[in-house]
Amino acid sequence: MELRRFFVKNSDFDENIVTVSGAEFVHAVKVLRYKVGYKIILSTGDGWDYMAEITDVGKDYFKAKITSKTPNKGMPTHRVTLCQASLKGGKNDFVAQKAVELGASEIVFFDSENVTEKRVQKDRLDKIALEAAKQCHRAAKPEIKVSDFSKILELSKTAPTIAAYEDEEEFSLSVALEKLRDQKEIILVVGSEGGFTKKEAEALKDAGAVLVSLGKRILRAETAAVSLLAITMYELGEMNA
Amino acid sequence: MELRRFFVKNSDFDENIVTVSGAEFVHAVKVLRYKVGYKIILSTGDGWDYMAEITDVGKDYFKAKITSKTPNKGMPTHRVTLCQASLKGGKNDFVAQKAVELGASEIVFFDSENVTEKRVQKDRLDKIALEAAKQCHRAAKPEIKVSDFSKILELSKTAPTIAAYEDEEEFSLSVALEKLRDQKEIILVVGSEGGFTKKEAEALKDAGAVLVSLGKRILRAETAAVSLLAITMYELGEMNA
Repeated sequence: MELRRFFVKNSDFDENIVTVSGAEFVHAVKVLRYKVGYKIILSTGDGWDYMAEITDVGKDYFKAKITSKTPNKGMPTHRVTLCQASLKGGKNDFVAQKAVELGASEIVFFDSENVTEKRVQKDRLDKIALEAAKQCHRAAKPEIKVSDFSKILELSKTAPTIAAYEDEEEFSLSVALEKLRDQKEIILVVGSEGGFTKKEAEALKDAGAVLVSLGKRILRAETAAVSLLAITMYELGEMNA
Repeated sequence: MELRRFFVKNSDFDENIVTVSGAEFVHAVKVLRYKVGYKIILSTGDGWDYMAEITDVGKDYFKAKITSKTPNKGMPTHRVTLCQASLKGGKNDFVAQKAVELGASEIVFFDSENVTEKRVQKDRLDKIALEAAKQCHRAAKPEIKVSDFSKILELSKTAPTIAAYEDEEEFSLSVALEKLRDQKEIILVVGSEGGFTKKEAEALKDAGAVLVSLGKRILRAETAAVSLLAITMYELGEMNA
């Protein structure tokens, strides 16, 4: 049976005994019916997989004993931040889930001019990101942030930034990525269903972002996000065996 | 206003007058309330965009006059076939839609050992593919086919084939794609939620497919499909401006 992963905090550790409560307790004991003797993996987000065995199940907690630790293989070695203008109809959920699988270190949902879905459900997205991290064997849940366009401009000044822009007709992603292969940190920016306004595209450019086309077929926003992230990770060597 | 695209057949043409009926008539006249004088784009799948103006609206048809034609920019120049083992919970819909946007020429859903959703709704997927083609400005709807694993093996003998395999630990996609950059035709194969069995993976290999890892994070089947297709299109230059 595949070992299930549960996320814990450093403060849950007492030497090699970990006490798990809250949502992870509920998931393990109430939903999955895990019992004493079951083997699990615990993650604190520090890059290690803690192999453990359940030793005690209480009413609102369980205890597990660490048996060994190994470096987690699912942690990305580059820091790629995906900034996604908030999308409608559950598509933020979709982008968050796929971005975790593909290895984004942080996912920032932001509000911009053509965004019609201003409400970003951070709690829900945190939960989706946690589930996705467990599913794809990552030892840490990427941070989900909620922001606005002006902060994305600030962010683009802190690391090399690539923004997908529908009306960019000259500059290709391959040219942009070729120059960034040695970077340890990259920021990707994708607009909403309505895309960026011309003014916003100019502002991104002024802030140092490289505007790129994703080709002649017009991709939906969420397809653009997943494709841009997958291709970037591929170019950085993060999709290698 | 952005021009809407409607798909027609060669037999709908009478010199430069096109008579549109059926679902495309319903969409234009009943849903969008298009009237005489409205400008549209017509596609026959031959790689051209026919610019046209509605000249007559009947009870179950409309007529449009061709004003000019231009080469369609959304047509892929490579022939990439995506073979996807049938997925559960609407994920076939998702893969079909994204594959059309990303430029797949054909999408084959197949049945294999770990497939639990044997029923592939071809009519529904055809409709989704048509809508996606309109949305992303492609002049032709890619063909949707329903098949089984033995036929995928036959298919892999006809063109260079890459299959994503979860248990492949050595061979990376980048190595496989580097060798295929000059190919005009590529076949991609992605398994179901349960993945391929060891026996199936061996059979794919025997049929000439290259088994590749998509990295150390375990991707969901639909994430693997979209990522593999996006990266392949990118390497072929299909995502360039």
